[in-house]
Amino acid sequence: MIILSLNSGSSSLKYQVFDYVSGETLSTGMVERVTVGDSFIKFCRHGGAAQTIGHECHDHRAAMKLILQVITDPVTGVLGSLDEIAAVGHRVVHGGEFFAKSVLIDDETVRLVKSLYSLAPLHNPPNVLGIEAAREAMPNVPHVAVLDTAWHQTMPKYSYTYALPHEWYEQHGIRRYGFHGTSLLYCAKRAAVLLGKDPLQTNLVILHIGNGASANAVKDGLSFDTSMGLTPLEGLVMGTRAGDHDAAIDLAMMEKLGKTPKEMNDILNKKSGIYGITAGKWSDRRDVENAAKEGNELAQLAIDVEVYRLKKYVGAYMAAIGGADALVFTAGVGEMSALHRARTCEGLEFLGIKIDHAKNDMAHTRNAEVCISTEDSKVKVFIIPTDEERVIIEDTVAIMNGTYDDHTRFVYPFQKADYINSQRLKEFERECQKRPILGSIEAKPV
Amino acid sequence: MIILSLNSGSSSLKYQVFDYVSGETLSTGMVERVTVGDSFIKFCRHGGAAQTIGHECHDHRAAMKLILQVITDPVTGVLGSLDEIAAVGHRVVHGGEFFAKSVLIDDETVRLVKSLYSLAPLHNPPNVLGIEAAREAMPNVPHVAVLDTAWHQTMPKYSYTYALPHEWYEQHGIRRYGFHGTSLLYCAKRAAVLLGKDPLQTNLVILHIGNGASANAVKDGLSFDTSMGLTPLEGLVMGTRAGDHDAAIDLAMMEKLGKTPKEMNDILNKKSGIYGITAGKWSDRRDVENAAKEGNELAQLAIDVEVYRLKKYVGAYMAAIGGADALVFTAGVGEMSALHRARTCEGLEFLGIKIDHAKNDMAHTRNAEVCISTEDSKVKVFIIPTDEERVIIEDTVAIMNGTYDDHTRFVYPFQKADYINSQRLKEFERECQKRPILGSIEAKPV
Repeated sequence: MIILSLNSGSSSLKYQVFDYVSGETLSTGMVERVTVGDSFIKFCRHGGAAQTIGHECHDHRAAMKLILQVITDPVTGVLGSLDEIAAVGHRVVHGGEFFAKSVLIDDETVRLVKSLYSLAPLHNPPNVLGIEAAREAMPNVPHVAVLDTAWHQTMPKYSYTYALPHEWYEQHGIRRYGFHGTSLLYCAKRAAVLLGKDPLQTNLVILHIGNGASANAVKDGLSFDTSMGLTPLEGLVMGTRAGDHDAAIDLAMMEKLGKTPKEMNDILNKKSGIYGITAGKWSDRRDVENAAKEGNELAQLAIDVEVYRLKKYVGAYMAAIGGADALVFTAGVGEMSALHRARTCEGLEFLGIKIDHAKNDMAHTRNAEVCISTEDSKVKVFIIPTDEERVIIEDTVAIMNGTYDDHTRFVYPFQKADYINSQRLKEFERECQKRPILGSIEAKPV
Repeated sequence: MIILSLNSGSSSLKYQVFDYVSGETLSTGMVERVTVGDSFIKFCRHGGAAQTIGHECHDHRAAMKLILQVITDPVTGVLGSLDEIAAVGHRVVHGGEFFAKSVLIDDETVRLVKSLYSLAPLHNPPNVLGIEAAREAMPNVPHVAVLDTAWHQTMPKYSYTYALPHEWYEQHGIRRYGFHGTSLLYCAKRAAVLLGKDPLQTNLVILHIGNGASANAVKDGLSFDTSMGLTPLEGLVMGTRAGDHDAAIDLAMMEKLGKTPKEMNDILNKKSGIYGITAGKWSDRRDVENAAKEGNELAQLAIDVEVYRLKKYVGAYMAAIGGADALVFTAGVGEMSALHRARTCEGLEFLGIKIDHAKNDMAHTRNAEVCISTEDSKVKVFIIPTDEERVIIEDTVAIMNGTYDDHTRFVYPFQKADYINSQRLKEFERECQKRPILGSIEAKPV
């Protein structure tokens, strides 16, 4: 069964052609500079080298056509015809309170995703452009929406409610939604497998640390709290985003500097975080780590502030869920920076978190799935390379096969015991047995 | 030795006349409605009933005169003449980075406190009015400033640095300062005594929960982190203040509702918190608890959100300092609400926090200083009725006696081993021995 996964950004369209039977990615690539001119597609067939083809795409429709052409072309392609595609999975960022899980797309789905534009002005509009272009090009194929916020819809009301005027929630949907859900769900599933536990009895703290970053408390297999809020600005220190801070600062600085709300929002999202602390010098953690090693004080401060906040979230979320089975690091920085992991866990021995520094130091590529805690660490510490495409494909297949429970639309599948025994999770577990990884460092296939 | 302590607000002037030798408060009271008309003084002599005298005070100078008249009057007074006053201690809210401890007031002190008006526009101006009125009325008496922010000046740089543009700190002093320092210092000192430990080896998490509320991590006897930030808006859920939330919400709502930064600041400080969650119905926790008991859902939600955030701060701060010897509840709600304490500690047994519910339920007045954890609780849980006046008086006396170490201006006395053995702490310990309180509930003298 061939599944096409799509991730549509404002000027890009990313794809993956996946053979669910063989478990192989046949082709993967991305059209870049869509709508902005000089666009091109960069792609890679299974086992082959990357290729680039220049081709003007004035809109997402054109980008979609280009991808379908490339994957069915006798020279560059991997499919005999488009008819081989059984379903298309779409990544959608914001599902508001409408979507607690992945869904088959119909006109109503598109209408609801559009109704959330004001909550995700940068992401939902291009997501919809991608869906519309794909539905137009493949009208007879089922399309599935996998929503980033859906994972967090299990949060209790006291986790997602802000201490702000009640009518803001009622009238404007102001609440914590959280993001990175597709990545976090992948990690939660993997962690349960690595722990050898029923997912519904698994308590986790997951740290997704990339350029954007969020922490997630998982209680009994369900998202219980997360650090990103109404928008991805809240929470951890990020590459260029401020995360948590006194909101009165923004209001005072708007007056002092004569900034509009939009301009202040730009500063908090694009000129703050690591970039802000280092006076605009760096936002990439590798650069910051190097600069700190060379004695740059602001670079050192940026790392100190970042890992200190990570440490506090680990403590806060362990308190929230009454202790955790495992602490998970994922995404670029989480997977590659031994320094960030070591510094985050430093001094948390009283919480039962003990790092094996030799193992931690060895894990610095994006491919290692590994347990980096000591044998006697009460809380296991995992590095899990995230794989959002895998979730998009798995959800799409499950919905196609009828193994995805959508009886109660607002309940995430993990709540259903039968779902855990479904084809999807069996498949997943079977694959895990093929590569026993717990406690050793090993390159990850795919 | 007679010490007069003063706490000057925008329309009030609070005082206490304290005899340091006998350890007795001779007279305590407050002039209210200063500058707004219909002003009056309400006061109470040691052992006597409260009295009220109407007297117009158009400014703080007049209020000061009224207090001095009342305390030296043959009928209402407690002093033969003003000459008996050895020193005056003033509460000052914001000391910025200038003051890491209490100081003898001179013109330069006043200039520095004035230079911080923009950081504390509601508090520092009336504080200065009080200082100026008192210095004018008692020019030959030493005046001491006890600053709320001073306690937090020991925070490491990574605790007080926001992930915001670096120049905001350099040019505008944007950083975490923290508040409630005088109360938190009192609790830290008491907790060390109750634990029977050297204050410099004491790790604490203190929850000061009143209408305003802040959490404090104390490592080795020094403030290490605190939840209030540049302003008192940040951190915990408060009576009417929002505390932590996604700052992007404010910017989005300013645009939606057409609000200025000042108006939004007002909403976040005066229309949010418990008041916001309950749709403007309640901000007093006693009312909210009653409404929740009667089945009001928003009242229940407000309590749930508040205690959940308290719980997360306990976990975060324990992670920050690597575990704590004691968790301390103080201020109105912390001292009186058994529900808040129980709900905050619920599920924290894995952190070594175990409440004795019988003891906790019994402690519901403002006078009980008590240990409410079980015998085998690794982390002791104390209720400590706070006493800011006591700190003002102790600091003033120590500065007068030369036992307050001001060799290094930016080092808080607790850092000095010799300070711990000073007259002030001995006095303090002696008094504690007079009333052994650990583990039992007993009305507190004074």
